[in-house]
Amino acid sequence: MYRAPLSEIAFTLKEVAGLGQLQAQPGQEELSDDLIEAILGEAAKFAEEEIAPLNRVGDENPAQLIDGSVKTSPGWKDVYTRWREGGWNALTGDPEFGGQGLPNMLHVAVFEMWNAGSMAFTLCPTLTTGAVEAIEKHGSPELKAKYLEKLTSGEWTGTMNLTEPHAGSDLNALRAKAEPVGDGSYKISGQKIFITYGDHDMTDNVIHLVLARLPDAPAGTRGISLFAVPKYFVNDDGSLGEKNDVTVAGVEHKLGIHGSPTCTMSYGDNGGAIGWLIGEENRGLACMFTMMNNARLAVGVQGLGIAERAFQEALAYSLDRKQGRGVGSKTDGMDPIAVHPDIKRTLLSMKSQTQVARAICYACAHALDMAKLAPDAEQKKFWAERAGLLTPIAKALSTDFGVDVASLGIQVHGGMGFIEETGAAQHLRDARIAPIYEGTNGIQSIDLVMRKLPMSGGEQVRSLISEIKEIASSVNADNTGELGDLGSKLDAAIADLETATEWMLAAQADGKVSEALAGATPYLRLAGITLGAGLLAKGALASKSAPEALKKPRYLMARSFAETVLGESAPLKDDVTRAAEAILAFDAAELA
Amino acid sequence: MYRAPLSEIAFTLKEVAGLGQLQAQPGQEELSDDLIEAILGEAAKFAEEEIAPLNRVGDENPAQLIDGSVKTSPGWKDVYTRWREGGWNALTGDPEFGGQGLPNMLHVAVFEMWNAGSMAFTLCPTLTTGAVEAIEKHGSPELKAKYLEKLTSGEWTGTMNLTEPHAGSDLNALRAKAEPVGDGSYKISGQKIFITYGDHDMTDNVIHLVLARLPDAPAGTRGISLFAVPKYFVNDDGSLGEKNDVTVAGVEHKLGIHGSPTCTMSYGDNGGAIGWLIGEENRGLACMFTMMNNARLAVGVQGLGIAERAFQEALAYSLDRKQGRGVGSKTDGMDPIAVHPDIKRTLLSMKSQTQVARAICYACAHALDMAKLAPDAEQKKFWAERAGLLTPIAKALSTDFGVDVASLGIQVHGGMGFIEETGAAQHLRDARIAPIYEGTNGIQSIDLVMRKLPMSGGEQVRSLISEIKEIASSVNADNTGELGDLGSKLDAAIADLETATEWMLAAQADGKVSEALAGATPYLRLAGITLGAGLLAKGALASKSAPEALKKPRYLMARSFAETVLGESAPLKDDVTRAAEAILAFDAAELA
Repeated sequence: MYRAPLSEIAFTLKEVAGLGQLQAQPGQEELSDDLIEAILGEAAKFAEEEIAPLNRVGDENPAQLIDGSVKTSPGWKDVYTRWREGGWNALTGDPEFGGQGLPNMLHVAVFEMWNAGSMAFTLCPTLTTGAVEAIEKHGSPELKAKYLEKLTSGEWTGTMNLTEPHAGSDLNALRAKAEPVGDGSYKISGQKIFITYGDHDMTDNVIHLVLARLPDAPAGTRGISLFAVPKYFVNDDGSLGEKNDVTVAGVEHKLGIHGSPTCTMSYGDNGGAIGWLIGEENRGLACMFTMMNNARLAVGVQGLGIAERAFQEALAYSLDRKQGRGVGSKTDGMDPIAVHPDIKRTLLSMKSQTQVARAICYACAHALDMAKLAPDAEQKKFWAERAGLLTPIAKALSTDFGVDVASLGIQVHGGMGFIEETGAAQHLRDARIAPIYEGTNGIQSIDLVMRKLPMSGGEQVRSLISEIKEIASSVNADNTGELGDLGSKLDAAIADLETATEWMLAAQADGKVSEALAGATPYLRLAGITLGAGLLAKGALASKSAPEALKKPRYLMARSFAETVLGESAPLKDDVTRAAEAILAFDAAELA
Repeated sequence: MYRAPLSEIAFTLKEVAGLGQLQAQPGQEELSDDLIEAILGEAAKFAEEEIAPLNRVGDENPAQLIDGSVKTSPGWKDVYTRWREGGWNALTGDPEFGGQGLPNMLHVAVFEMWNAGSMAFTLCPTLTTGAVEAIEKHGSPELKAKYLEKLTSGEWTGTMNLTEPHAGSDLNALRAKAEPVGDGSYKISGQKIFITYGDHDMTDNVIHLVLARLPDAPAGTRGISLFAVPKYFVNDDGSLGEKNDVTVAGVEHKLGIHGSPTCTMSYGDNGGAIGWLIGEENRGLACMFTMMNNARLAVGVQGLGIAERAFQEALAYSLDRKQGRGVGSKTDGMDPIAVHPDIKRTLLSMKSQTQVARAICYACAHALDMAKLAPDAEQKKFWAERAGLLTPIAKALSTDFGVDVASLGIQVHGGMGFIEETGAAQHLRDARIAPIYEGTNGIQSIDLVMRKLPMSGGEQVRSLISEIKEIASSVNADNTGELGDLGSKLDAAIADLETATEWMLAAQADGKVSEALAGATPYLRLAGITLGAGLLAKGALASKSAPEALKKPRYLMARSFAETVLGESAPLKDDVTRAAEAILAFDAAELA
């Protein structure tokens, strides 16, 4: 069961994440409220009616490798076809190639719903979107002409081939080879692992984007190039030719997302797979990085989608399941467990975490859009930096929350939560990959601390903190008492975040790299919960005059998140600034 | 791979949890260090060599219901037989019935190792132990004569039948019936769910302990009686007779512990299952409660066992897997990921959490033993209350930590952690049930706050806090600087725990039941981390003069747990004392 929370999504886009600013940019006149509402409504319908029912089917009938080809779960191909025919794949693509060119903000909103429907299903278009972006930005006119229209429409799908057995987080160690054939093409050989939808039967062709090294390439990541390697060659008239030398060596048996085939791909086992260069030689990593922000945000949105669905199911169960009696209950028999204070605590925590993830992911998408649409270079730079700053937070915090909310969802179900038929357990299994792939959350924290904080000499992060301060001022100006300790907790958290931020910037300036790295994870959480509480507060204040049914949950979320989570800011600040010595002294080898 | 951490186990028993005090009690002269070492060493061997290899087998080949009987996973019956023949089942049983009568402290230490080997396997003797205790304490001489020897030896196993579809956490709703036959036996009928090892092929007989209502029983939990219902009737000469009217209606498909069959049991489908009363009529719940403390502690030990194994596997992986280069690394290629600060943080966190769980579980077992062995009634009462106080903390904190450590273990493995073959994912799947069964962790928190804090007018919890204060004084007396912020963090946490405790006691005195219930979960965590930090500190101080290889990890654990976790005490105190208003205002029905 999944009902897209359309009013919450629309509210967050408009009142929290800044959709209005986007609509006000020159050239965005067509991005009307009516259009947005229509798209969200139709996407919600598709997510609820078509995608959501696939989720259990895929979990129980994983994609399988049969005679060298991957067969997807029953019914998946049909839904994919309807999805593609409905034009959903083309939502954000370049209009030149049949895309609708809609902004990232809408993209994350609809992907939230599709991921809530089925994260395993939605991974396929998520990867295709990445391939489209890479080719749009770096592909030659010939490559674009050959692939972009069909990738944009979803008639073909795309994959990303980075990881090799010895090169996961560290792409320096990458070994796949590319040799120039002489006709502009390259012979690609090597093995790639963890390739999402590396093969499947939902489309006629799959376009693999593969990182590999040229014979004379420099060592390390400055010697990696990116290639487009189609499963079937594409003739000049667009028809499909022979099969390329690309084989599926295996499909992984995973904890979750069973419907999404995770393939080991072998290139060039029989003489060499043929591929074409995307961008320049040895600049492959740069090509990958241009789409990294979007891909990382897309993973954050997976955490968000699963959290929303897990919350909805736990909420429904808590109202249905009767056990015990509420304090002072006047009913005859047992009450729904939703009346018990500890269940209230759990549900409110799930809802608040979900909304924090939504607000931060949408704000990140907003920054990505503004980086493209802002009228001048200075603003473009500001927003690009803002997107860079928010991306690791959106990825890591939303996926950590996704796991936490899914786990709390199991807990609300009690013993039934451990039984697979209930579906609660699947959410935890599915959610658990999101903190790992597309850069582990540890790596997101390091990216935040080492690359993003120092942007513009620290001014970007300081400007974000200033914005949260403004929200805190508005909270403190509200003296109705309805917001409880929100104002004081927010003030304290902002001060802690400032202290930790300046400590981090100073540590790096002083060359204390290990110390900064040791505190990266708590720093990201500190930044994430402070920003999240700020955005919840913004949402609450924006609902001040709304009908009670809308205002109340937003007030309770903001207040309760501050009163139960935000107080962590002080220990997190201490953790960042004082815990490194003991951590760095720990030597695993001494215990082995 | 699992290597029992024998020196850590022995150290925790002796230097942290108070084994010496136990050995000094009259009648415990035989409980020598040599005997303990010998038992732990042999138990470790069995856990490592026999039980640990079963874990994957059971996960991949779940127990199955075939033609009405449960077939366990390949090899399980053989190991069970060797385990029983090795005398392991009889460790704690009454010597009158062939048991060795060893104390709970040893029991939890060996069960830690067996659970680390395979929690799913170890559940079977865990349940039998519960049945033995119930019959030992409440059974008639006839029942004891008939069942105890074979249950103690493990020739037969036992089950606990409480839950029904509509009676989970709330046993008031229990419907199973028992009608007196007239010959001293009762006809039992009804359905029970979630029955661990409700049926299996490892022994010839299974003795079910079943809660049911007599025809004239009062409503609610004061009308529940406990019965022994054998799978096969037992003749007076001890041989097995006909099969009782007990059938397995189904086996659950679960997230984890696949090797442990979770059965739906049907009693009396064909005329009535015959059972015999344990204890008095309508006093069944009291019979169950006498063993509840032990069972809840046993579940805490499951969290501990899984945490230890997940830590060991993550540690080994971190030393083997090479990615990236350490800061200032002088090596040629990549370094083991164990050198990276964020991995150090993760491993040290896993190790500290595991040791906290160990220390608290062992301390709880110590209290249970002292409640039995202490020389006078006053001390017996003190220790019984101490056991009562520590039990919900041992259960909930250790199982929460079990899940957290298993999840961190996946994270250390990166992408490989999500692949089932690695085994890391299984630990999370297995661990996830422990916060749910034997009373959810929410119910543990409520038990702690509503039943345990008020014991002796609050003096029991105050005495525990005083003991932590003494440890803190010793920490503060150590001015070497090696313990970092441990002393100040411990002082602050103790003060926060005192405030929260007095608030809780006052809230109940003032009839603010809902407010107390709303804060129960953070209160338990506050008490748990403060006690845990205290016990880590005690272990560190006890290692002051130990060789560096032993001292260093204990110092780092204590210090780092304080510097990265214990700071939560202030926000947890605020959560307990200030967050209830918003939580109680949350009404799930308004969102449906």
